[in-house]
Amino acid sequence: MKLKAMGEDAVVAALLRGVPAGRGVIRGPGDDCAVIGSPCAKYWRLLKTDCVIETVHFLPNDAPEKIGWKALARAISDIAAMGGRPQQALITLAISRDQELRRATGIYTGLRKCARTYGVAIVGGETARSPGPMFISVMLSGEVERHRCVFRSGGEPRDRLFVTGRLGGSLAGRHLTFEPRDEEARWLAQRFRIHAMMDLSDGLGSDLPRLAQASGCGFRLDEGALPLNPGCTVAEGISDGEDYELLFALAPREAERLRILWPRKFPRLELTEIGILTAPGDSKSPGRGKKKLHGYDHFA
Amino acid sequence: MKLKAMGEDAVVAALLRGVPAGRGVIRGPGDDCAVIGSPCAKYWRLLKTDCVIETVHFLPNDAPEKIGWKALARAISDIAAMGGRPQQALITLAISRDQELRRATGIYTGLRKCARTYGVAIVGGETARSPGPMFISVMLSGEVERHRCVFRSGGEPRDRLFVTGRLGGSLAGRHLTFEPRDEEARWLAQRFRIHAMMDLSDGLGSDLPRLAQASGCGFRLDEGALPLNPGCTVAEGISDGEDYELLFALAPREAERLRILWPRKFPRLELTEIGILTAPGDSKSPGRGKKKLHGYDHFA
Repeated sequence: MKLKAMGEDAVVAALLRGVPAGRGVIRGPGDDCAVIGSPCAKYWRLLKTDCVIETVHFLPNDAPEKIGWKALARAISDIAAMGGRPQQALITLAISRDQELRRATGIYTGLRKCARTYGVAIVGGETARSPGPMFISVMLSGEVERHRCVFRSGGEPRDRLFVTGRLGGSLAGRHLTFEPRDEEARWLAQRFRIHAMMDLSDGLGSDLPRLAQASGCGFRLDEGALPLNPGCTVAEGISDGEDYELLFALAPREAERLRILWPRKFPRLELTEIGILTAPGDSKSPGRGKKKLHGYDHFA
Repeated sequence: MKLKAMGEDAVVAALLRGVPAGRGVIRGPGDDCAVIGSPCAKYWRLLKTDCVIETVHFLPNDAPEKIGWKALARAISDIAAMGGRPQQALITLAISRDQELRRATGIYTGLRKCARTYGVAIVGGETARSPGPMFISVMLSGEVERHRCVFRSGGEPRDRLFVTGRLGGSLAGRHLTFEPRDEEARWLAQRFRIHAMMDLSDGLGSDLPRLAQASGCGFRLDEGALPLNPGCTVAEGISDGEDYELLFALAPREAERLRILWPRKFPRLELTEIGILTAPGDSKSPGRGKKKLHGYDHFA
């Protein structure tokens, strides 16, 4: 069967069947990051790998500095979504021999800027010839205090669902310049009992069902409440992807506290309640039905 | 300037200018792996990223299982060359939507086989659409006892240079099926004071000058002593690349002990003395001159 007939989640499930687990692996495939450590260690290690590909994640005419920024910022967003801090990055750049050096150095300028902004050390990597599109793969290592590590899987029925910022329309430019919500995620993980959290990379339509499924829950999405970027429809807010905002779930009582404290701490970033987790099998997205909810799929 | 006019080492040097270092970074770019830790911690963390690209590192008709094996084995070889043990891997697979699922699962079969053989856990990764060639990037995390960590940079004039196995002709097939010298490297790091070590990926012609330069030394290569694979010329043994054998340097007295102990421990794997490190500026490769010594260069 061809990959495009299957869709991304089915392909990943087929590939991961039977991969060897290992000692010290707290969480393997299926969350924003892999989590390594011993159950009672104070800190757990977070490992993430992420790639951007020319014509898929950026275009040949995009500014190299922005491409470099995006390549690293995506991985930082995943570390943040676990409640963690990014630390060391390794970069693999595959690029045509016919490219100008200044394009490659421009990408590194963007990588360095992002690294400095978020306190990441670039500790190595590789440069290789690509016979086709440019390809940048980022490996990021970070850490999180064990008791603050937030998985996708801890959500419970009746939990309130929130997103930071606004959704949709990222392709107009924001997908290259977004700021990972690392400070916000750290604050949430420190001050609240966040049951489940992830960053929105493929769009709410793909990612919310993933969070609900990982938590063994259904969900109800209040589409009328979605915080949309100017000019975006609800469908675009759900499906465009590359928002890199936080999606998280917490108990009703914690949600009350959050509604009060958030605007004091982050007065310039919106926080919106967009729905609830429900008992499994009870998913409902009013006006669309759960079948219509979808986001970006690499293979579909 | 175009990348192909510069050569790989010059491109890498230009890209790495000004990358931010960080707390806890024992060794950044320029060795087989990045090394993370505190100076007196018992264990240091090793981080490596490495990629294989269709038409560059493998061909469209190569068996998917072998491609997967190679992708992971390359990174294991780098961890071994630091004296370390590989632990967790994350895999990024970029593949065309028009490929068959069995090609992707075949690659994972090879990855799993290699992971099991060398005690590696596959803890995550990413699957993305490639609009061009297939691309597999491997992130590997490992550890090494601090006092056994072997860099490229510790070589000294008069050190003896050794290589394991035989060189040249890898493209005939061995580049897809090689066995990283992890047991051998661990034994060397445990039993001897290895001054400098690396794995031969771009060929002795590229890699020996890198080891010598990192150590602030020159070198003399005894080309007549090179252990060549059947049918290979000296030039092929020096330049073909993808040998994934160990190259290392140690003091003359240690070398004497090694010559006795190696054949008892590894009777089926050759170990060959191929030259010495010298004072800086004294590099000589008899019959060819140091200018002629070269290996694989991605951009040249």
